[in-house]
Amino acid sequence: MKIALAQLNYHIGNFALNTQKIIAAIKEAEQQSAELVVFSELCVCGYPPRDFLEFDDFINQCYASVNEIAKHTNKVAVVLGSPRKNPVIEGKDLFNSAYFIYEGEVKHIANKSLLPNYDIFDEYRYFEPGKTFEPVLFKGKKIALTICEDIWNAGIDKPMYSTCPLDDAIKYGPDLIINISASPFSYTHNRERMKIISANVARYKLPVIYVNQVGAETELIFDGGSMVMNEKGELVTQLPFFEEALEVVEFTEQGVKEPRVKNQELRNKPDIELIHNALILGIKDYFGKLGFKKAILGLSGGIDSAVVLCLAAEALGKENVMSLLLPSGFSSGHSVDDAKLLSENLGTKYEVVPVEDNFQATLKTLQPFFKDMPFNLAEENLQARVRAIILMAFCNKFGYILLNTSNKSEAAVGYGTLYGDMCGGLSVIGDVYKTQVYELAKHINRNGEIIPLNIITKAPSAELRPNQKDSDSLPDYDILDKILFQYIEKIQGPKELVAMGFEKILVDRILKMVNMNEWKRFQTPPVLRVSPKAFGVGRRMPIEGKYLG
Amino acid sequence: MKIALAQLNYHIGNFALNTQKIIAAIKEAEQQSAELVVFSELCVCGYPPRDFLEFDDFINQCYASVNEIAKHTNKVAVVLGSPRKNPVIEGKDLFNSAYFIYEGEVKHIANKSLLPNYDIFDEYRYFEPGKTFEPVLFKGKKIALTICEDIWNAGIDKPMYSTCPLDDAIKYGPDLIINISASPFSYTHNRERMKIISANVARYKLPVIYVNQVGAETELIFDGGSMVMNEKGELVTQLPFFEEALEVVEFTEQGVKEPRVKNQELRNKPDIELIHNALILGIKDYFGKLGFKKAILGLSGGIDSAVVLCLAAEALGKENVMSLLLPSGFSSGHSVDDAKLLSENLGTKYEVVPVEDNFQATLKTLQPFFKDMPFNLAEENLQARVRAIILMAFCNKFGYILLNTSNKSEAAVGYGTLYGDMCGGLSVIGDVYKTQVYELAKHINRNGEIIPLNIITKAPSAELRPNQKDSDSLPDYDILDKILFQYIEKIQGPKELVAMGFEKILVDRILKMVNMNEWKRFQTPPVLRVSPKAFGVGRRMPIEGKYLG
Repeated sequence: MKIALAQLNYHIGNFALNTQKIIAAIKEAEQQSAELVVFSELCVCGYPPRDFLEFDDFINQCYASVNEIAKHTNKVAVVLGSPRKNPVIEGKDLFNSAYFIYEGEVKHIANKSLLPNYDIFDEYRYFEPGKTFEPVLFKGKKIALTICEDIWNAGIDKPMYSTCPLDDAIKYGPDLIINISASPFSYTHNRERMKIISANVARYKLPVIYVNQVGAETELIFDGGSMVMNEKGELVTQLPFFEEALEVVEFTEQGVKEPRVKNQELRNKPDIELIHNALILGIKDYFGKLGFKKAILGLSGGIDSAVVLCLAAEALGKENVMSLLLPSGFSSGHSVDDAKLLSENLGTKYEVVPVEDNFQATLKTLQPFFKDMPFNLAEENLQARVRAIILMAFCNKFGYILLNTSNKSEAAVGYGTLYGDMCGGLSVIGDVYKTQVYELAKHINRNGEIIPLNIITKAPSAELRPNQKDSDSLPDYDILDKILFQYIEKIQGPKELVAMGFEKILVDRILKMVNMNEWKRFQTPPVLRVSPKAFGVGRRMPIEGKYLG
Repeated sequence: MKIALAQLNYHIGNFALNTQKIIAAIKEAEQQSAELVVFSELCVCGYPPRDFLEFDDFINQCYASVNEIAKHTNKVAVVLGSPRKNPVIEGKDLFNSAYFIYEGEVKHIANKSLLPNYDIFDEYRYFEPGKTFEPVLFKGKKIALTICEDIWNAGIDKPMYSTCPLDDAIKYGPDLIINISASPFSYTHNRERMKIISANVARYKLPVIYVNQVGAETELIFDGGSMVMNEKGELVTQLPFFEEALEVVEFTEQGVKEPRVKNQELRNKPDIELIHNALILGIKDYFGKLGFKKAILGLSGGIDSAVVLCLAAEALGKENVMSLLLPSGFSSGHSVDDAKLLSENLGTKYEVVPVEDNFQATLKTLQPFFKDMPFNLAEENLQARVRAIILMAFCNKFGYILLNTSNKSEAAVGYGTLYGDMCGGLSVIGDVYKTQVYELAKHINRNGEIIPLNIITKAPSAELRPNQKDSDSLPDYDILDKILFQYIEKIQGPKELVAMGFEKILVDRILKMVNMNEWKRFQTPPVLRVSPKAFGVGRRMPIEGKYLG
C-alpha cells in the first residue's frame, strides 16, 4: 500500500485556504499513485484554533470543509483532523477527531483520547476524551488511528495520564499506527519525538506513520519533521523541517519498500541552527498570515537588535526591512557606526533619527514637576520611550510592523522599559537567552562577517546613562542564564538551585527579579517559542503572587 | 453542631500571611464555641496559584502551612483547601484537596473531582481528578466534602462533565454537604451560585454549607457570598459580599438553629452596584497585594477616565490618587474645565501638563521623513503616546501606578492607541461596556453630582483631530454594545446575530474589528473581570487567525 505523508502549513480559521491546500495535496498524492494520504491534526481549521472552537459557526465551517474534501476521495483515501461535535449531552461539546474518508464517505472516526493541558496546550478546555479504539479496515489492513498526544504516554518515567490509548487499540491486532499531530517546535523537540515514536514501536512492534503540521501560528512554530518508522524501530524517512512537503512511502508484506532516510542531515543539525531556522519561519508566517510585508526595528548597535535585523532580512527580504538608529546623548559613537555597518553588510535601509531633542523637550515639560530631583530610572526609561514613539510613528505612517528585540534573559529579570524597548508586534528573540544570542550571531556570521565583530565583542549596555553596562545591574550572563534556565525551563526552586552549587544570595535575587516582573511581561508582544518553556501562553504566573517575589 | 464559615482574603504564595489569617480565624471560631470551621478552596496558598503549583518548593510550603495550622485544631476541627501530591506515578502530580483536620491530625482528605478548565480556569493543567467520595465522620454526623466545581454539574441543561460527584457520595448517606470554593465574581455569578446550590439541595435533600474566598487576585475578583442553605432550600444565611467575614451557624436535629437571612439586601442590589463594589475591591487589592499605594491617571474630560478616577479615589483614598490633565491642540476647553471640576469635587490632586510642545517637537523630528504626507492615524496616535510618556515619567519618578481607563467597547473594536491610552498597570473598566460606564457614572452620582453632568452628557470623543467624535468611526454605542455582548459573552456567531435582527453589514464589520484587534489586546494590562467573559486570560483567541477577521 502506498501512503502519502502531507506536511502542510495551515492558517487558523482560513477555511478556504486550508481546504484548497488539502485538495491540492490529495491530487498530488493521487498522481504519485498513493492509496492513502495522511494530513495533520485539526488541519481543516489549523492548530491551535483556541476559543474559535466555542463558536458553532466555526465548527460548522469545519464540517463544510470536510464535506468539500470528501468529494476528492474517490481514488485515494484520506486521514485528516477536524473538531467534531460530541453527540452526547454530558461532557465537553467537541471531540478532537481523526477522520478516515474514502469514496466520498467518512468511513471511520477516531477521537483523541489524551488531551494535553500543560505548557502551551489547553485541549481539555474544549474536548471530551475519546474512549473507543477500533482500527480502520482499509484494503485488508487494520490501521490504528491516533492523534498527537495519544502516543506520548508510552515509555515515560512519570506518565501524565493513567492510560495509553494504544494499549487498548492493540487488542484489535492493527497492522500499522498512524499518528496525526500538531506538535510545536522547541530545540529539544525532535529528540523527544524520536524517542517517543521509538518507544511506541518498541512497545507495540508496529510501524508508525507520523504526520505533523508545519508553519508558525503567532508564537508557536511547527517544524514538520513528519516521519515513518518501521516495526524494527528504523527511521524509514523523515520529511524536512520548517517547510511543506509530501512524500509517498510504500508498505508491502515485507515491510516498507525502499527504506531510505532522506534528510538525515536535518536531524544532526546543532540546536542553534534549528533555533535560527525556526525563528526565520516564525517571522515569515507572522507577517504572511497577518497580511503584512514590512518590518522596522530600532538598531542600537548592540547584539540583540543586530541579530533580529539579520533574521528579519532573511525572513522577509532585505528590501522589506528598515531600521532606525536612534542615538540619544548617551549613545556612544561606535553604536551608530556599528549599526550602519551592519545595515550596509545586509543591504537593508536605515535612517538615523537623533532623539535628543525630543528627550530634552519632554524633560522640559516635566521640569516644573521633577524640579532638581536627580536623574534616575525615570529619565532612563524616558529615552527608551521616546525611541518607541518614533518607531511607532513610522509604523503608523508607512505600514511597518515593529519587531521587538528583547532577549529572554532581559525579559526574565525585567531589564527593559515597558512601552519603550519592550514594544513591538512580535518578540523575535524573547525565548533566546543572551548567551544563545551570541551563538546565533556566530551562526549568522558562519560564512563571513555580517554582524560586525565589534557588536559581538563589546560589553552589553543599554546606553541610557553615562558609561552604563548591563553588568552594573545584572550578574554575568553566563551565570544568570544558567540560573534562569534551571528556574524557567527545569522548574527548579531555590533549594534545588543552591544544591546545584549556585550562591544563595544570587539565586534569591534572580528568582525575585523574575517573579516581580510578571506584570511587565504580561504586556509584552507574543514571543516566538523555541525552547520547552517560553514566556507567554505556556508559562502562567500570578502577577501579584508573593512567592519568591 | 456549631459550624463557622470563614470567608477570608488570601494572598497567593504569601504562606506566612495566609497561615496567620487562618489561625486567627480558628481562634475566633473557637471563642464563638464553633466545633468546626470551614475555609475556602486552596486557602493555604491562595487561588489561583497557577504555575507556582509546578514548583516542588511551593507545594512543600503548602504542606508546612497545613502542619502549622493543624497544631491549632485541638478544640475545633478545620476544613481547608490545599494542593497535595498525588502518590500514584501515573496521572497529574497533584490533587486539589479538602483536608479535614482535628486534634492536630489530618483525619480525612477529599480530592476535587470536577476540574474546571474553561474561561479563566485551568485546573486540569495541574490536578488529577478525585475518584473517591467517602464522607467524614465527625461527632456522629457524616459530612460530604466537596470542592467548588464538584457541585456545579447538577441541575444543568448541558452538563460539562459526565459525572456528578455527589451522586456517588450520596450512597454513603451523608447528613450535610460542605463545599469549599474559589469562585470568581461576575455580575451574574450570585444568581448562578444560588441556582446551583438550590439544585444540589433539591437533588440530594441535604443542607449545604458553601464557603467562598473573598478578595481580588489581579484580574479576578472573588466576592465571598458564602452561605448556608437548609435541606428545604431556604437560605439560612449569606455572608457579605466583597469583605472578610466569619459567622457561626448551629445545626441541630431539628435543622439549623435560629435560621435567619442577614445581608438580604446584598442579593437584591442591582448589577451596576455589584460591579461598582467589585471594581473598588479589585483596585484596592491590586495595590495592596503588590505593595503600592499611589495611583495616577490621565484625565481627559471624558466619562471613562472620570469614572476610573472616582473608583480609584474610593478604593485608595483621595490623597493617594493623582490625575494629569494633558491637553493637546485638539483638546476642547471644556475638557480641561470638566476634569478640573471633577478633581475638585473629589478632592484629588491634579496637574495640567500641556503636551503640545512635545507633540510638535516629535513632529519636527519626523518631518524629514513624513514630509508633506497628510495628518492621519500616525499623528493621532502620537498624541496619545506623548501623553503616556508623561504619565509613565510621573510613575517612575514618584512611584505612582498608572491606571488604564479603556472601556470594553473600545478594547473590543481596537479603538485606542497601543502604548498610548492603552497603557497602565491595571485596566479598571476594561470589562465594562461604554453603556455600562454611563450607568456607573450615574451610580457614582447617586447622592449628588460628583462627576460633572457635562462629562456625562457630551458626545464621546478621543480629541485627537479637530471635531473628532467616536461616532465618526464607530456605530452608536447602544447598538455596538448589544452586538459585542452577544458575540463576546454569549458566543453568538454572525448567522445568529443576523437572525436576532442586527444588520448583516454592521455585524460583519464589528466582528471583523474585534478579531483583527487581538494583537492589540494581547499587550494590554490585566482587566478587572466583572462579566462572565472578560478580555484576558478567560478569552483565548489566535492573533493571526483568519476567522471573521
